[in-house]
Amino acid sequence: MLLKFTKMHGAGNDFVVIDLITQRCKLRPRDIRMLADRHLGVGCDQVLLVEPPGSPDVDFRYRIFNADGKEVEQCGNGARCFARFVRDKKLTHKRVISVETNCGVIQLRIRDNHQVEVDMGTPVFEPARIPFKAQEEADCYPLEVDGQTLEIGAVSMGNPHAVLRVDSVADVDIEHLGPRIETHEAFPKKVNAGFMQVVSPGEIRLRVFERGVGETLACGTGACAAVVYGLNRGWLRDTVTVNLPGGKLSISWAGPGHSVKMIGPTALVFEGSIKI
Amino acid sequence: MLLKFTKMHGAGNDFVVIDLITQRCKLRPRDIRMLADRHLGVGCDQVLLVEPPGSPDVDFRYRIFNADGKEVEQCGNGARCFARFVRDKKLTHKRVISVETNCGVIQLRIRDNHQVEVDMGTPVFEPARIPFKAQEEADCYPLEVDGQTLEIGAVSMGNPHAVLRVDSVADVDIEHLGPRIETHEAFPKKVNAGFMQVVSPGEIRLRVFERGVGETLACGTGACAAVVYGLNRGWLRDTVTVNLPGGKLSISWAGPGHSVKMIGPTALVFEGSIKI
Repeated sequence: MLLKFTKMHGAGNDFVVIDLITQRCKLRPRDIRMLADRHLGVGCDQVLLVEPPGSPDVDFRYRIFNADGKEVEQCGNGARCFARFVRDKKLTHKRVISVETNCGVIQLRIRDNHQVEVDMGTPVFEPARIPFKAQEEADCYPLEVDGQTLEIGAVSMGNPHAVLRVDSVADVDIEHLGPRIETHEAFPKKVNAGFMQVVSPGEIRLRVFERGVGETLACGTGACAAVVYGLNRGWLRDTVTVNLPGGKLSISWAGPGHSVKMIGPTALVFEGSIKI
Repeated sequence: MLLKFTKMHGAGNDFVVIDLITQRCKLRPRDIRMLADRHLGVGCDQVLLVEPPGSPDVDFRYRIFNADGKEVEQCGNGARCFARFVRDKKLTHKRVISVETNCGVIQLRIRDNHQVEVDMGTPVFEPARIPFKAQEEADCYPLEVDGQTLEIGAVSMGNPHAVLRVDSVADVDIEHLGPRIETHEAFPKKVNAGFMQVVSPGEIRLRVFERGVGETLACGTGACAAVVYGLNRGWLRDTVTVNLPGGKLSISWAGPGHSVKMIGPTALVFEGSIKI
């Protein structure tokens, strides 16, 4: 069949978005891999599927597949593109959308200028739930890397993050340090490593070395983890502009027990159709 | 405007092909760079433009742009996709097409099974015209690299090639050796470095380190250069299957004064439209 798709990106993290409400198609893992292939297919970081909801309480079901064909849980940049897609395609007229994902129901709020607000859930600090090997929960921890002791924050945003404050993100040797932190024995399921430079209490610069991927243009959960850590340390205020290599995100957190809000851009790149 | 395009590939070398006969659009270098960008645009190695011919003796004008927005001369894999495109889009009913390029008029012959034959022009062996620093023309030359003497062939197929016969292409340290040959002082305009394993007189394996690019999936002119060199040395017969990482090409050469024929596959990946 001829499958219609839309190529989008959110702060440089790019997606092939497929409407499986007006189109019927069963996509196999090999179809997903082909769609994600940058030379032989369309090319993207992840494939996003827009499906009818399983329950009447939500508006859509949102599924996310990595380029290797495996289904994954969470992608904040993808969720923003998802929200813009369903509005642009007139699949809904609502500005606040309830979406069923593999890690629960999330709320997406469409703002002006193609900005979308995503509720990213509540940060988790308990070491065992990150998972992170530590005697007890703390705002920061020592981590031995190459014989040096780094000071890190550890937080889960659905996926584990280690955050390190640095003087200058431009000067960080991320290709060396990223993999050392990612695979550190203190993180039994590995970890995403964030390097944060505090510009002012309302602004940071951030580079993230993603678990199993390497440095990326814009990691939404990494931005949340960095701001939450910086707030806990007293370096940041409750709404922070996060400058990532792929663009700007705005992250807000009202403190323990509250969920983290992420506001960021969405871009529609092109429309296409491909034989499946 | 909304620009229609087709994504194609020839043995893994991928292209965005744009019909500027039925569509009118002036593409600026920044538009080309955006189209070629794999995250923020469509993504391809090169952008191919299908334009009306400047003279009544030819069928089309074919222009090729690299991802950096600069216009270039020759691309055999692109020429095959060009030929399939103009047939599929019914811009011509001919099976043999005359195409005006920046390096003269070329003939493209459409065969069955999406295979296209391209006349790749006559190989040039005169050192000064490659350009290559040598006292006189020879079938092979010594080249000093890292204190070792390699035996290479030197030939121009519109662009300069050095070809080295190896026992096994799988074992070549192309990341080290490629740049050493590419930037060797004997090649004043640099050179594409080909590593050829002779499987039988009718079959070779080939890896090419392209000038300014690095190793690629399928270099058409590199395949021609390797076969011409192997024929001159008496290792190959006049029609050879060339196994490249991205696919198979068939190369034929009848000897000095004749042009090299390349037959290879074309694939249509998807159709799209993008705002310019």
